[in-house]
Amino acid sequence: MPDTLNKIYHPDKISLREVGLRDGLQMVAQFPSTDARKRWISEEYAAGIRHFEVGSFLPKVGYPAFADVEILVDYAGDINNLHSVALCPNLRGAKNALKSKVAELTCVVSASEAHNLANLNRYQKQTLDEIAMVCGLRDKTHHRPLISVGIAMSFGCSISGNVEPGEVVDIAAKCFESGVDMVWLADTVGYAGPKQVEHLIDRVRGSLGDQPIGIHLHDTRGLGLANASAALNAGVRALDASLGGLGGCPFVPNATGNIVMEDLAFLCQKEGFETGIDIEALVAVRRILETEMPAEILYGGYAKAGSPRIIP
Amino acid sequence: MPDTLNKIYHPDKISLREVGLRDGLQMVAQFPSTDARKRWISEEYAAGIRHFEVGSFLPKVGYPAFADVEILVDYAGDINNLHSVALCPNLRGAKNALKSKVAELTCVVSASEAHNLANLNRYQKQTLDEIAMVCGLRDKTHHRPLISVGIAMSFGCSISGNVEPGEVVDIAAKCFESGVDMVWLADTVGYAGPKQVEHLIDRVRGSLGDQPIGIHLHDTRGLGLANASAALNAGVRALDASLGGLGGCPFVPNATGNIVMEDLAFLCQKEGFETGIDIEALVAVRRILETEMPAEILYGGYAKAGSPRIIP
Repeated sequence: MPDTLNKIYHPDKISLREVGLRDGLQMVAQFPSTDARKRWISEEYAAGIRHFEVGSFLPKVGYPAFADVEILVDYAGDINNLHSVALCPNLRGAKNALKSKVAELTCVVSASEAHNLANLNRYQKQTLDEIAMVCGLRDKTHHRPLISVGIAMSFGCSISGNVEPGEVVDIAAKCFESGVDMVWLADTVGYAGPKQVEHLIDRVRGSLGDQPIGIHLHDTRGLGLANASAALNAGVRALDASLGGLGGCPFVPNATGNIVMEDLAFLCQKEGFETGIDIEALVAVRRILETEMPAEILYGGYAKAGSPRIIP
Repeated sequence: MPDTLNKIYHPDKISLREVGLRDGLQMVAQFPSTDARKRWISEEYAAGIRHFEVGSFLPKVGYPAFADVEILVDYAGDINNLHSVALCPNLRGAKNALKSKVAELTCVVSASEAHNLANLNRYQKQTLDEIAMVCGLRDKTHHRPLISVGIAMSFGCSISGNVEPGEVVDIAAKCFESGVDMVWLADTVGYAGPKQVEHLIDRVRGSLGDQPIGIHLHDTRGLGLANASAALNAGVRALDASLGGLGGCPFVPNATGNIVMEDLAFLCQKEGFETGIDIEALVAVRRILETEMPAEILYGGYAKAGSPRIIP
């Protein structure tokens, strides 16, 4: 389905995917009501964002923040040109997601065996086999949603340390062979640096050609936007971020979260990309988070400083 | 004095200049005691930092945070291989600084006439004439300290908007002609983006050759470390930063401050530079700021997350 994919993640246009509704809520004590999350989606859509990871297909009892994922999928699906995504951490979740109207299922595998075991309780090979099964099941559906895979710990692992780029390339290759449409390189714990980002993207491109790649960065050690800039320089146009930098990782307690959507949008503008995003309007959506999740720290410079007088 | 300069700011080695004791204190309600600032200097020196802007030569009555600048200059001057810097916003301050043992006087001029008038109450030409006078006075001293100039608003001005790179090049050229040793390009209000940083550095180098350049970045809109990464890519090796990202600017109220020293040191390590900096030790120095300035927000990801398991 390259035509569909090129429309959704155009290889020459910036696609910023809001992951705060999923990655941003997985560790919080208090999460926005379903209604507030609908407003979050619609207001951020009005500010120009078109890609939303709206939740995760997980058991409703253990994961109340995502119990209404189908409701949000339906809500998002009714908005014109809004591309909805949901995380499917396992086969059961993927089966449920395939029954929904979600436009993209995101599966997960780790670049390190140790983290795959800790995070998913499976060996990498088992996870990759499950991803292949999900692709097979998807092929039997009528609506044929996209399948993407996030490769966690692509730039280093907080359990086992270094990750060789070749391992990431091998995993990405296996995903594409199984029918995955797009792979997201994830710096889950904030180990990446700019040159490393460029190097890994070059390696993946060198081995796999123009297969669609996105990048998922955390600002754990302050280099998130420097790494995003490097990814842009390396030709990646699909980037994850979250409003206010929401997000946490159970493998790095107390750390800062995803890269900040508002500042990322400013970066893209400064670098000369047409984004269609109104950053002031984006900043205004933070109000929902401040009201619904008062205990959460919201990050970001743009929100504090406001617009520059003239964007050169 | 190129030999002296090359020793202090080696063109191939990273020099990170701590500006928190000056830029970081100019807008705070509460500032550390002289004794606490001595500990700040000595502990950050022990963590590997060698360049410190210790204060500003300003009237003692109006600017109590800098009333003890001579004491800190003397203290810093007694530490082996520590390079002390002080801001001299006007001729009177420079004259006092030349009587002290400070190793580098930093003067200021703005890339925009409007900001020069608002900040220094002088036209750019008057300021440049004063800087030339300071160089002349310096040449008559026995100890001949370095003279550097920070060009404020080099990447855009919060009063007058766009700044043309050619204007910055002209100002830098005039400074070097007057005997200035080094010019610092300053993104005073956080308008810069990575490509713009590379472009301006290339322009200055293209016009002025290998004249020593440093870069002074704020994280006002979240792009500080992306811009630092771009400056490194463009060959700049001297960068300002402050512990915990302390710093404010009267022209951008409520904004975040300078780029965070701890995260910048991590960036330099990730990019493969030998820095001699122990980031954990650097993070530990934040304790002094937390104790002495409890009202100030300290920024930075590394301090929250801690060291990565292995630095790849």
